[in-house]
Amino acid sequence: MTVTADMLRSHPDAGKADPQALAACVDRCLECVQTCTTCADACLAEEMVAELRTCIRTDLDCADLCDATARVLSRPAGHGTRVVRDVLAACASACKACGDECERHAGRHEHCAVCAEACRRCERACRELLDSLG
Amino acid sequence: MTVTADMLRSHPDAGKADPQALAACVDRCLECVQTCTTCADACLAEEMVAELRTCIRTDLDCADLCDATARVLSRPAGHGTRVVRDVLAACASACKACGDECERHAGRHEHCAVCAEACRRCERACRELLDSLG
Amino acid sequence: MTVTADMLRSHPDAGKADPQALAACVDRCLECVQTCTTCADACLAEEMVAELRTCIRTDLDCADLCDATARVLSRPAGHGTRVVRDVLAACASACKACGDECERHAGRHEHCAVCAEACRRCERACRELLDSLG
Amino acid sequence: MTVTADMLRSHPDAGKADPQALAACVDRCLECVQTCTTCADACLAEEMVAELRTCIRTDLDCADLCDATARVLSRPAGHGTRVVRDVLAACASACKACGDECERHAGRHEHCAVCAEACRRCERACRELLDSLG
Repeated sequence: MTVTADMLRSHPDAGKADPQALAACVDRCLECVQTCTTCADACLAEEMVAELRTCIRTDLDCADLCDATARVLSRPAGHGTRVVRDVLAACASACKACGDECERHAGRHEHCAVCAEACRRCERACRELLDSLG
Repeated sequence: MTVTADMLRSHPDAGKADPQALAACVDRCLECVQTCTTCADACLAEEMVAELRTCIRTDLDCADLCDATARVLSRPAGHGTRVVRDVLAACASACKACGDECERHAGRHEHCAVCAEACRRCERACRELLDSLG
Repeated sequence: MTVTADMLRSHPDAGKADPQALAACVDRCLECVQTCTTCADACLAEEMVAELRTCIRTDLDCADLCDATARVLSRPAGHGTRVVRDVLAACASACKACGDECERHAGRHEHCAVCAEACRRCERACRELLDSLG
Repeated sequence: MTVTADMLRSHPDAGKADPQALAACVDRCLECVQTCTTCADACLAEEMVAELRTCIRTDLDCADLCDATARVLSRPAGHGTRVVRDVLAACASACKACGDECERHAGRHEHCAVCAEACRRCERACRELLDSLG
């Protein structure tokens, strides 16, 4: 999804963040919105749904945080404020919680395995962007 | 909007947060999604739109954070985790930034005045809920 | 939540829709985002979660449609386009599906009863606004 | 973003839609959330912002519809209902409106050119999925 990088490059005032790191983080967030939303629906469809309650909840929280984070980061002209740091921290926490929970079921459910990896990638991208903001 | 309180009261496992404080915070977040979304559209319609760019951006960021926060808080069974604290902190930051910016235009634009007050109420509700989580 | 009506009244170019009907529909959508999100989490917490799968799914779809609809309607200067009609129709469909499903469980679960009523109110508000657009 | 296809393939009850067409549509919706959000922020940063008001509004509406559509489609077990058709129709309308508007500025603003193409791709994916639902 290099379209994100194209968009950020064409922005007349794209802030101070490195466009590549920013685009990578946005793309990881959008990917994680998707995997978490489908993982929740897939968990609901499993016979053992009662054992997957926590997984469904962390999926839903993570999807919402990643969604908000992708949107805030996609408005780079406003960056430099405390809001960006705080939303990245919240997103990393949600990805950590969901990655940990999905990992517990990764051996039995392929959707949890794929989702756990997406959460790890997104958490890492958020923390790297946070670090780069200094 | 006492419907939120009714919903949280009828939840079989509504977590440790005080249901009244939780419902109040959810309602303030939803109110702020609305005021910020309309304030951005109203600012866009003003003749002096070029001077309202920052206001439109803080409105949009604030709407997205309040939206994610209302959703996470509306899933109380998952609470007690770090995610709730982090999202409340991010939401309070977004409301602070937007409230400050809208306040600067409150004398000229009624929509900014009403929105600034909604942001203040939401920021306060987030901080109070954060404090109550200990 | 008359704050929505205040915001729409203060908008310099609020379109052709009746501000009261518009504000009522926005408020019903936001209410329904909330009830559906909490109803899904409450259903997940019930012992009989396996029988509530469809209810959880219609809750989540309905919350997403109501969220998007509240946002689009809160930008009244863009109205008059086909998008508003289509999003109102989609929201009414989602509220109908969720209201029907929640109603099936209303006798056993208070959260489904409260949520079903919110869905009915929101569906009605969407259809009334659609009709008023001519 | 083949991760979406992986997720949908690993779903135990992924409905009747063709997984490839479904994944393609979800990915186009997420891409369009991104381009529209950044295009709105970039338009706000342009000197001629006053002439880009309609573009900013169609961007914001389109982002919200694509977001909701990506989420609903990512829950395939609930499909087959009227809601999916209606949300796809609403999303196609929003993409059409935004693609048309962005195209008008494509010669002057690279972000509008890239965004217009993403809107066209997403509109096409929604209509193809709609058609495939029979």
